[in-house]
Amino acid sequence: MNVLITCAGRRTSLLSEFVKAARRREGIVAAADTDALAPAVMLADTAVRMPPLRDSSYISVLEGAIRDMHADLVVPTIDTELLLLATYKERLERNGCTVLVSASNLVEILRDKFVMASVFSRHGIRVPACWVPGSINASDLPDALFVKPRDGSASKHVYRLRRSQLDAVLPMVPSPMVQEEIQGPEITVDGLLDMAGRCVHYVPRRRVKTLAGESVQSVTIDDSDIREWLLAVFGILGSMGGIGPMTVQAFLTDDGPVLSEINPRFGGGVPLAFAAGGHYPEWILQMLGGEHVESRIGEYTKGLWMTRHHIEVFTERPLWDQ
Amino acid sequence: MNVLITCAGRRTSLLSEFVKAARRREGIVAAADTDALAPAVMLADTAVRMPPLRDSSYISVLEGAIRDMHADLVVPTIDTELLLLATYKERLERNGCTVLVSASNLVEILRDKFVMASVFSRHGIRVPACWVPGSINASDLPDALFVKPRDGSASKHVYRLRRSQLDAVLPMVPSPMVQEEIQGPEITVDGLLDMAGRCVHYVPRRRVKTLAGESVQSVTIDDSDIREWLLAVFGILGSMGGIGPMTVQAFLTDDGPVLSEINPRFGGGVPLAFAAGGHYPEWILQMLGGEHVESRIGEYTKGLWMTRHHIEVFTERPLWDQ
Repeated sequence: MNVLITCAGRRTSLLSEFVKAARRREGIVAAADTDALAPAVMLADTAVRMPPLRDSSYISVLEGAIRDMHADLVVPTIDTELLLLATYKERLERNGCTVLVSASNLVEILRDKFVMASVFSRHGIRVPACWVPGSINASDLPDALFVKPRDGSASKHVYRLRRSQLDAVLPMVPSPMVQEEIQGPEITVDGLLDMAGRCVHYVPRRRVKTLAGESVQSVTIDDSDIREWLLAVFGILGSMGGIGPMTVQAFLTDDGPVLSEINPRFGGGVPLAFAAGGHYPEWILQMLGGEHVESRIGEYTKGLWMTRHHIEVFTERPLWDQ
Repeated sequence: MNVLITCAGRRTSLLSEFVKAARRREGIVAAADTDALAPAVMLADTAVRMPPLRDSSYISVLEGAIRDMHADLVVPTIDTELLLLATYKERLERNGCTVLVSASNLVEILRDKFVMASVFSRHGIRVPACWVPGSINASDLPDALFVKPRDGSASKHVYRLRRSQLDAVLPMVPSPMVQEEIQGPEITVDGLLDMAGRCVHYVPRRRVKTLAGESVQSVTIDDSDIREWLLAVFGILGSMGGIGPMTVQAFLTDDGPVLSEINPRFGGGVPLAFAAGGHYPEWILQMLGGEHVESRIGEYTKGLWMTRHHIEVFTERPLWDQ
């Protein structure tokens, strides 16, 4: 069974989990990226050179790669690619593969943090109060705020500020939204839905330290207090066309969890979920092979700490010109 | 020969170079940090728990660790610790070790980017034009500017902006300085001075990609056009009490290099210098052992690319409470 990971970048631990699962089935894993120095591209069984995402040839190049390697599974990894792959999912799957991406309407909802908040709020899930320019009445605003792009990622252009600073900061942020600051530890939940949208597993973790929006220290936490809430969130996602990996972020307040963000893809910190017993790449290939993958809610190691550091790869000959 | 690396954090490749050099001399390497999840602390031969840098007991705890492990060498790694270790260098060295830090007056000059620029400018080294609040005459300023903290690190609070945005941004930056934007690729040079301040070696590299101020992709470049300039910069550093590792940043403009920053410590991207043939940990231990370390200017692999990715360490039992 052959796997193609797109925008593979620095996702080397994700790559090696798929390599392990694919090898058991006599398959290979290819990593695709525009960047010849993307570590995953350098370490994969095969490298695929892609044009930039905005290039009109992106889908046809991807289609060619799928055919060349007889890919059974395509795994997108970054937010900016999800909608494109969701849109062309049917066309790509005509080549005999499964594209591990949720329905495009769900991807669109989750991509816009303001729309996401209003949709989940209508489903009875608590979200932080948020505003967009035009709907802001300064006297409604609390004093502690965040300003961030509605479709941002990796903490880019995220500012924590007081209400009095809002007028100065708002023009610096592309398509901004304003959000109340919520008190309480922020958690991330790496979850997996099956191809019918049913929740198979999740691992909640507290983010201990982040660098440039990427989690470099995390610890898995007990789920007993938030199980119902998580199953409700995953249930909504499944009912809206969600499949595959989901990364849910929330604040744990004294009044229960407040949902802050959902990304319908593998999160950067998912290696901790793998180490804690969430064998998502293996289970995904089992699903593709038609095996029954049972639900394993709550079965993971609690109190497992992850800490990350850099490792270097050197070359005098990049695979292609930069 | 035993080595103690302080504020060791995520400097695991630096750690392993020192481990290799120390093992050849039947020594061990200890890593010190406040954080039980610092990867270097988890991977070193011994871990040393430190109080926060601002704690008044810091130096006496460090002294205890030096004695306990019979350290021959203490290697600081982060900007905020350098001045403290430079100040107490003599007291710490009474315990029979060498503290790899430059003279405190040099550390102080380099810590303040505005003072550094004026000192090197007086030595005839070109630096970007820069201003501090009080000396700013808006009509003097070019349109493309940077605002950054005079003593900042890791790209924190660095803003690239137009002159018209200056009034809004200046209050957001602690002890700010304004700097003209220089056109041209930015290079970083990892260099080594011996204990007398003489330049032993350097490896210049172009930063291809940075994340959170940390270099994740770099390539070594030819030094023939900048050798004289680099030897002049290292010469000034040596004459002002510089010893050990130096990280020099500059812009390569059509009119030659423009010096932007110097940190008198190992830079985050120094593993590329090691891979290109700069065996600084080994040479430092040779110096300490009284061996002659000859100068090897220009002897390194040109066109060597480095790309970095994360690797995870997991534990159910951190070495101490967080």
